[in-house]
Amino acid sequence: MITSLRQMAETVRSSGIKRKIAVGWAQDPNTIGSLYRAVSEGFAEALMIGRREQMISTCIETGADPERFTFIEADDEKSAAEMAVSMTRSGEADVVMKGLVGTDKFLRAVMDRENGLLPPRSVMSYVCAVEIPAYHKLLFITDTAVIPFPDLDQKVAMAGYAINMAQRFGIKKPSVALIGASEKVSSHFPNTHDYSVMCKMAERGQIASCVMDGPVDLFLACDPESVKIKGVDTPLAGNADILLFPSLESCNPFYKGLMLFAGGELAGMICGTSKPVVLMSRSESELSKYYCVALSCLMASQKQ
Amino acid sequence: MITSLRQMAETVRSSGIKRKIAVGWAQDPNTIGSLYRAVSEGFAEALMIGRREQMISTCIETGADPERFTFIEADDEKSAAEMAVSMTRSGEADVVMKGLVGTDKFLRAVMDRENGLLPPRSVMSYVCAVEIPAYHKLLFITDTAVIPFPDLDQKVAMAGYAINMAQRFGIKKPSVALIGASEKVSSHFPNTHDYSVMCKMAERGQIASCVMDGPVDLFLACDPESVKIKGVDTPLAGNADILLFPSLESCNPFYKGLMLFAGGELAGMICGTSKPVVLMSRSESELSKYYCVALSCLMASQKQ
Repeated sequence: MITSLRQMAETVRSSGIKRKIAVGWAQDPNTIGSLYRAVSEGFAEALMIGRREQMISTCIETGADPERFTFIEADDEKSAAEMAVSMTRSGEADVVMKGLVGTDKFLRAVMDRENGLLPPRSVMSYVCAVEIPAYHKLLFITDTAVIPFPDLDQKVAMAGYAINMAQRFGIKKPSVALIGASEKVSSHFPNTHDYSVMCKMAERGQIASCVMDGPVDLFLACDPESVKIKGVDTPLAGNADILLFPSLESCNPFYKGLMLFAGGELAGMICGTSKPVVLMSRSESELSKYYCVALSCLMASQKQ
Repeated sequence: MITSLRQMAETVRSSGIKRKIAVGWAQDPNTIGSLYRAVSEGFAEALMIGRREQMISTCIETGADPERFTFIEADDEKSAAEMAVSMTRSGEADVVMKGLVGTDKFLRAVMDRENGLLPPRSVMSYVCAVEIPAYHKLLFITDTAVIPFPDLDQKVAMAGYAINMAQRFGIKKPSVALIGASEKVSSHFPNTHDYSVMCKMAERGQIASCVMDGPVDLFLACDPESVKIKGVDTPLAGNADILLFPSLESCNPFYKGLMLFAGGELAGMICGTSKPVVLMSRSESELSKYYCVALSCLMASQKQ
C-alpha cells in the first residue's frame, strides 16, 4: 500500500515504464520546470507542443537541458491544445497535459465530441491525493476543481474515480466519507439525501469495493477520538481514505487550507477521460506539480 | 491588537470585569469542566441551572469545587434552557450558554419571539476566531454552524458580525475575504454574484469599516506569494482577517480541517442575538471550550 506521495513517485520511477506526455503550448518555465524532473528521472517522455524556438530558449533560461525533450511546432495555443489531445487520443501519447494555454480552451479540446478524450455521457471530475503530516495516510479528495454542484449521478461518478485511484495506491477497499456539516440527514441539506442514496447503492453493490458512509463531518471521517465522543456508529471510524465533498465551493477551500496551513502536498488529475489529463494550478508548489505528473503516469498504466 | 486566543483570554482576565453566565441544564462534566477554569480565574460567574444535586455530584466527580458555582434548580432541560435565556434577557445574566440540553431545544428558547434573545428580523449566525500556527494572526471565520445556504442579506449580516468581533480584538479595519473556488465571477457560482454586490456595498460604505474583496480563493486571501504568482489585483493581498464562506457545508469542513490537521484552536459564539450565546460542540478541545467562554465575556462587555 502506498501511503505517501514520495512512495507513489518511487513506485512510478521503479516500474521501468516510460509514459509519453503530450503538452499543449509548452513554452512557459512553469510547465518545463514541472516536467524536467520527471523526464530526467526517466519515467516520462515529454512531447512539447508549441513555438519550438521559444521552448528551447525557455529550457536554457530555466536550466533544463532541451535535449531531454521532444519539440513539436504549433502556431497558436488552440492548435497546440488540439494537437496534444489528438496525439493522446490516437495513442501517440499516454497522457495529455495543459501548458500555457487557458484552462477553458484546453478543456474544450479535451471535451470535443469528435476529437476529444471524453467518452459520451462520461462525467469529468478531479481527484487529488493529499499528503499532510497530521494524517497517517493519504487522503483522496474530490472534487477540488471541476463540477460546481454535483448532482447524484455526478457524485456517484466522483466516488468511483476516487475509489479507482485509491485502489491504484494499493487500497483494496477504501473508506469513503461523504462530507457534510454534521452526521444528520436533513432536508435543509439536500446533499445529505444524495449521500443516503449513495450509501444504499454501496450496500447493494452498485458502488463497489468500498466502505461508504455519510453524511459525516470531518471529525467523524478522520478522527477516531471524535467518533468515540460523539458516539456515532460509523464504519469509517475516523479512518477515511476518501473525502467526497458536496460542492466545489466546499472542497476547494478545504484542500487549499491543507496546502497552506497543514503542510500539505498533493497529486491530482482529471478523471472520467479515456486517458489521464494533467491540469495544474500555477500556485501549486514545484513538488506538487512533479507529483501530478507522476500520478498521471501511475494512472496511465491501466486502461481507464 | 489581539493576535492570539491566549492574549484574548488574558485581556478578559485582566479587565477586572466579571460576567454572569446562565447555563441551561448544566449537569454534565463537559459543561462544568469548560466553565470551571473561567470561574476560577475570576472573569466569569456561572449560574448553573439544572438538577442541583446532580450538578454538585458532577462537580465533585470532575474535581471542580462546587462552592465556585451558583446552582439554580430546574425540573427538565426545556425549562432549564428557557430559564437561562430568560435570566439573560432580563439582565440577571450577561451571557447564555447551552449545557446538556439538545441544540434544537436550546436554540428554540433563544429564538422565541416573546421571551428569547433574537431581535425581530435579526439574522443569527456563528463566528469563530481561529488560531493556527501557520498563520501570523487570528482568522475570523463564518458561518461554521448556523445558516445552511446564506442569501445576500444573510451574508451581509455575517460580514457585519465578523467585522464587529474583529474590531473587539483591536483590528480597526479588518480585511474581509469572500471565499470562493477561484477569483472569477461566474454564473455557475451564484455566490460570486452576491460577493460582487457586497463589494459594491462596501465601496459605498453600506458595509462599513472593512477592506472587502471577493470572490477570492483561499490562496489569494491568505497567501501573499499566490497573489504575486497569479497577478490578481486585490487589496486583501494575502493578509485577510476574516473569511466569509458561501455555505455551511463549505465553512464547516474547512474549520474542522484546521482544528484536526493544522493544530488549530478556536473561540466561537452565536452572533445576531441581543446577548452573547455560547454553544459548543462536544468534540471541541477543552482549551477551545475555555476560549469560547472567554470570548463571550469579551463580547458581552459591549452593547451588541
